[in-house]
Amino acid sequence: MLETTVPKMKILQQPTQEAWIEQAIANLDIILLDHSHCERKAASAALNLMFRYPSYARLVRQLTAIAQEELEHFELVNQWLDRRGIPLAPLNAPPYGAALKALARHNEPQRCLDLLLLSSLIEARSHERLGLLAQHCPEPELARFYQGLMASEARHYGIYWVLADHYFERPVVMARLEELAAAESQILATLHPEPRIHS
Amino acid sequence: MLETTVPKMKILQQPTQEAWIEQAIANLDIILLDHSHCERKAASAALNLMFRYPSYARLVRQLTAIAQEELEHFELVNQWLDRRGIPLAPLNAPPYGAALKALARHNEPQRCLDLLLLSSLIEARSHERLGLLAQHCPEPELARFYQGLMASEARHYGIYWVLADHYFERPVVMARLEELAAAESQILATLHPEPRIHS
Ligand SMILES: [Fe+2]
Ligand SMILES: [Fe+2]
Ligand SMILES: [Fe+2]
Ligand SMILES: [Fe+2]
Repeated sequence: MLETTVPKMKILQQPTQEAWIEQAIANLDIILLDHSHCERKAASAALNLMFRYPSYARLVRQLTAIAQEELEHFELVNQWLDRRGIPLAPLNAPPYGAALKALARHNEPQRCLDLLLLSSLIEARSHERLGLLAQHCPEPELARFYQGLMASEARHYGIYWVLADHYFERPVVMARLEELAAAESQILATLHPEPRIHS
Repeated sequence: MLETTVPKMKILQQPTQEAWIEQAIANLDIILLDHSHCERKAASAALNLMFRYPSYARLVRQLTAIAQEELEHFELVNQWLDRRGIPLAPLNAPPYGAALKALARHNEPQRCLDLLLLSSLIEARSHERLGLLAQHCPEPELARFYQGLMASEARHYGIYWVLADHYFERPVVMARLEELAAAESQILATLHPEPRIHS
């Protein structure tokens, strides 16, 4: 249903710092709760993009599939919360999402390009961080769970990138990606004090 | 996954008028395009409710399942658009949704009750109207498609009602449903000139 070819490209400019791994592994329960919110927000983001560009058939088709997968992830994470006796609860969002959203230009078609690339970056960062959790999580079953989700997030960032590349000229996409990726790494350069997937 | 028991209750106060059926059958292509938007909006509405009440575990679990089903419906309707060569396109929404939303009280917990009951009413009306399309549509295959979706919408309105009944006292729910159902029928008493699922 979703395209399976992930572009072999480096989207993120800077890798996650060591300090995030320590913070996350020391707070696995909060990370799981935040992860639940991330999956729901990922589904919402895909729906909102469809809502904004209802006549872009390829975008609508592929984001429908992404939204469905994010809802499956949301359910799976919530089952983990259940199993660990962590009640569903609101959680302050880290500055990451709002800081990225503020970078999207307001005029079309630039806004469409920016929203696709920002989603690609967020998915790429999720992919990287779920991978770090898979690698460093001391609980083997939970580590395997993160390993399983990683692959989907890689496909997602690929799909967002391919959509950007479909609707815009390659050099324009690459130049803007470079700017947004630099900003994304910059936002994460200072570790947010509260443990989050994107702290 | 979703509860299958639908309360045997009459949610809608007034049945759809004959004029809507004629308008819809004379404009099947526009109705299909509007239906696509309705399914996407139904998925968004379920996600927004989860977003607003992130710690209501039962609500989150059941609305996740509804959102997934609505996205499946969205895909199915879009396949019908494809088959008939109708391009995806924006469409002015009829006054129905905004008029209902304006009825939701702003203070909690009243807002939660109102949002659940309004969703229940919208799903009940969709159920009724898809049933009318199934009955009157002159194209047998399309009629069968509507017939198939009808049952889900009935389950959905049941689930929203049961959630309201779970979080609130039965007499409070019934009294408020009566008010909102009267308003919903009133909004549809004048046929909207543009053919829509909720015109
Ligand atoms: Fe995900
Ligand atoms: Fe994702
Ligand atoms: Fe539906
Ligand atoms: Fe529904």
